Amino acid sequence: MGTDTRNRILAAAARLFHERGFEATGVATILREVGVNSGSLYHFFPSKEALLVGVLERHLESLHSTILEPAAGATDDPIERVFALLGLYRRGLVITDFTRGCLIGNLALEVGDGRPHVRALIEASFSVWAEGVRSWLDAAGDRLPADLDRGALSRFVLTVMEGAVMQARAAGSLEPFDASVAQLRSYMELLAAQARLGRGEAPAMPAGRETVEPSDEAPPPGRSAWRSW
Amino acid sequence: MGTDTRNRILAAAARLFHERGFEATGVATILREVGVNSGSLYHFFPSKEALLVGVLERHLESLHSTILEPAAGATDDPIERVFALLGLYRRGLVITDFTRGCLIGNLALEVGDGRPHVRALIEASFSVWAEGVRSWLDAAGDRLPADLDRGALSRFVLTVMEGAVMQARAAGSLEPFDASVAQLRSYMELLAAQARLGRGEAPAMPAGRETVEPSDEAPPPGRSAWRSW
Repeated sequence: MGTDTRNRILAAAARLFHERGFEATGVATILREVGVNSGSLYHFFPSKEALLVGVLERHLESLHSTILEPAAGATDDPIERVFALLGLYRRGLVITDFTRGCLIGNLALEVGDGRPHVRALIEASFSVWAEGVRSWLDAAGDRLPADLDRGALSRFVLTVMEGAVMQARAAGSLEPFDASVAQLRSYMELLAAQARLGRGEAPAMPAGRETVEPSDEAPPPGRSAWRSW
Repeated sequence: MGTDTRNRILAAAARLFHERGFEATGVATILREVGVNSGSLYHFFPSKEALLVGVLERHLESLHSTILEPAAGATDDPIERVFALLGLYRRGLVITDFTRGCLIGNLALEVGDGRPHVRALIEASFSVWAEGVRSWLDAAGDRLPADLDRGALSRFVLTVMEGAVMQARAAGSLEPFDASVAQLRSYMELLAAQARLGRGEAPAMPAGRETVEPSDEAPPPGRSAWRSW
């Protein structure tokens, strides 16, 4: 039962930090939502910062099961998995009416300074996320250039997700998100063309970039233009 | 003198919101820093949200003079201006020891929800920033493919800046920033190669991506590998 209370506190805190931010969430609100008194809360988390650390540790532990594995499960195509992952965030924007975005990205900009342990946990989540993407890029083998820095490209995918989510939230629209993902797709198509050239295959480059028509639905993974790779 | 007081309030609020965030900045701190009483503050800004709007309006008005024009002034090469702009943010990360990042990006993730006027001002800053980049991409003429969506690419540059700044802050290091900018450079080199192909020039593609050696200094604009375009 102690573990259950602790988990309920963490779940409520994670949701409130995600919805409102860390500073704007009062401890009283968390207590009210969970239905516990402050003694119970402080038993598990002696400070609001300890609660933040608990939320970040829980997120880090669940990153594979809640984010990376669903994306990987959407398609067997390793490169398409990258776009399925981005599609999860796209769906999140739609479901929450552009209010939440990425919990870790929000906290990275709000609470990292002056809290080295918090900052390290945020960076750890970013690293695990990017390592997941990197495993897919590695699995793409010779469909990407041999001399490509796949670690850097996996970090770039994270860069694109976070920057695209931010702009979509500000615009209250999927348009900047879709436009950014389309540019990433264009880049990866050019890399694929370069890889084909390296393997002595024609054509050297795509004649032009495909226009991906934005839709209000998250794109069904595995059914995009990417399939043709 | 009224205008002077108003400007001093806005400058202090902008700095504090940038350093600590909107929620974590108390009105008392602003009063103390500016050396005015609460009557003076509320004369100009009847609420903390009104102060936030004032800060965002001031930022929007100064975006050309403080950010876009310095980047444009760094080099005559329109594509190199994009990287000079990113170099300004890189320098900002170093100068502030990774604590501040982009004021608008921070506010986009912290305060946009439920404040439509605030969100519109954040989006307006993003738009003006991207339009500045777009004017440079337009000026690059046939060095980029004729069918390239230069508006989407300019938004992508913003995406990359914001996502790269976020990760650099979390890591407390320039490495993720430099890695992301190098990927953007790689993409734009591939676009340039595609444009050359479109003009019937050889070679069709770069044989490999250049590795840009990260340095602790902001790169001097106009002295990079980009020059060779």
